[in-house]
Amino acid sequence: MAPEDNITVVEKTERSQKETPTSNVVFIIAMEDEALPVVNQFQLTEDTDSPFPKGVPWIRYHGIYKDPQINIMWPGKDMVLGSNNVGTVPAALVTYASIQVLKPDLIINLGTAGGLKVKGACIGDVFVISDVAFHHRRNPLPIRDQYGIGARKTFPTPNLLKQLDLKIGKLSTGDSFDMSPEDEAFVMANDATVIDMEGAAVAHVADLLSVPAIFLKAVTNIVDDSKQSVEEFLQNVPAVTAALSQVATRAVDFIKGKCLSEL
Amino acid sequence: MAPEDNITVVEKTERSQKETPTSNVVFIIAMEDEALPVVNQFQLTEDTDSPFPKGVPWIRYHGIYKDPQINIMWPGKDMVLGSNNVGTVPAALVTYASIQVLKPDLIINLGTAGGLKVKGACIGDVFVISDVAFHHRRNPLPIRDQYGIGARKTFPTPNLLKQLDLKIGKLSTGDSFDMSPEDEAFVMANDATVIDMEGAAVAHVADLLSVPAIFLKAVTNIVDDSKQSVEEFLQNVPAVTAALSQVATRAVDFIKGKCLSEL
Repeated sequence: MAPEDNITVVEKTERSQKETPTSNVVFIIAMEDEALPVVNQFQLTEDTDSPFPKGVPWIRYHGIYKDPQINIMWPGKDMVLGSNNVGTVPAALVTYASIQVLKPDLIINLGTAGGLKVKGACIGDVFVISDVAFHHRRNPLPIRDQYGIGARKTFPTPNLLKQLDLKIGKLSTGDSFDMSPEDEAFVMANDATVIDMEGAAVAHVADLLSVPAIFLKAVTNIVDDSKQSVEEFLQNVPAVTAALSQVATRAVDFIKGKCLSEL
Repeated sequence: MAPEDNITVVEKTERSQKETPTSNVVFIIAMEDEALPVVNQFQLTEDTDSPFPKGVPWIRYHGIYKDPQINIMWPGKDMVLGSNNVGTVPAALVTYASIQVLKPDLIINLGTAGGLKVKGACIGDVFVISDVAFHHRRNPLPIRDQYGIGARKTFPTPNLLKQLDLKIGKLSTGDSFDMSPEDEAFVMANDATVIDMEGAAVAHVADLLSVPAIFLKAVTNIVDDSKQSVEEFLQNVPAVTAALSQVATRAVDFIKGKCLSEL
């Protein structure tokens, strides 16, 4: 394989079109508890006049941090139930609308995740994601089985990886908090170390619209042991999201002033 | 309960704002095999200059049928694998973008579905859907469990129902073609007669943006018997999609010239 074959289409496009420093970063963050520490870290302000359609509950926080424009998009809460709008559909919609309206150079999907002990994940680990796939979209038809899994590599950032010095792992995305036996078989086939409820949907939309996307996922609960994941999750959210906000700052500190091809 | 309490917010809004005849209908159809009979029926033309962002594989067919503007939005094919972009994420994205760009009065989500024999569904039945919910979004956290299910009533069209004289049933949506034991428990709890891979996602987006949506689903395969659903599905798609296109015509023949409150 020629070295050029290792370069993704997105990377090639970006290299030729965007040799200016990254100036506009959109974070996609599914839960308020995950978003607020990052909002505070970057001292961002909530939009008073939303640039998004009337009726959508999506919340945008924005501001300038040192140099780049930072936006945090949180899909907000279900207007009837008050629950955070977690999962693939709200994440995909917010990613699509953010790219259309805010025109970011780079998307960062940041959030909590379940970790697989068998793959070496521990509570509090923050992972940079190398690959994403779905584990809840089963289809027995040929070709449509692979479409359902939707495996793809994330935007390569070798220098950022070196700077952050975090674990690297594969992510599998599904619309349920738990992991059914059917889900588990796909998580294993996806060779995933962490699971979440948004990542592969964000990646799908970012790829469609040729915007590079990176993924920072921190482990709040272990999904392949006998403990109750929900209690573990609730207990660990505060410390893990605080740690994630520190990683977000370190990432943006490195990104500022650099072109995408330098990441 | 006062009679007024039975009227949905959407219906109230539409009654006060739109007492003009329905002039712009968008069909959301997930598969090419489902879309083409309807395209032919209405003699629509494929867009040569897409109004949607560069990069998205979505296909729009459009034209005037008797009176109203008819658009068919098909999420197209995965650009690498060639599979139809089935499932909740593409359906939600296409619904969102269609509402933004095409500004329909009414959305019709039309497609094939699995039927539950235990609830009286037979191959070839076409259902008008009264309620939608998800069956693949499990969450053990309080409130978030109900958010995951996302149950909602569809836009009420009592006169159209009388005209079409079809079966009425509840729809449950999941991202897999099959029905795992976990899915089945939710399908049953949702009291569903038919299952599909898009409906509840289309309903979610249409509700967010206050556009009335109706759902026509035809049974290609029975999901609660011992037969192989995939073979049954493939065998029945041609006849069932032909029948669906006839129902689409009858629906638009009734809708044309009428206000939403007359449907």
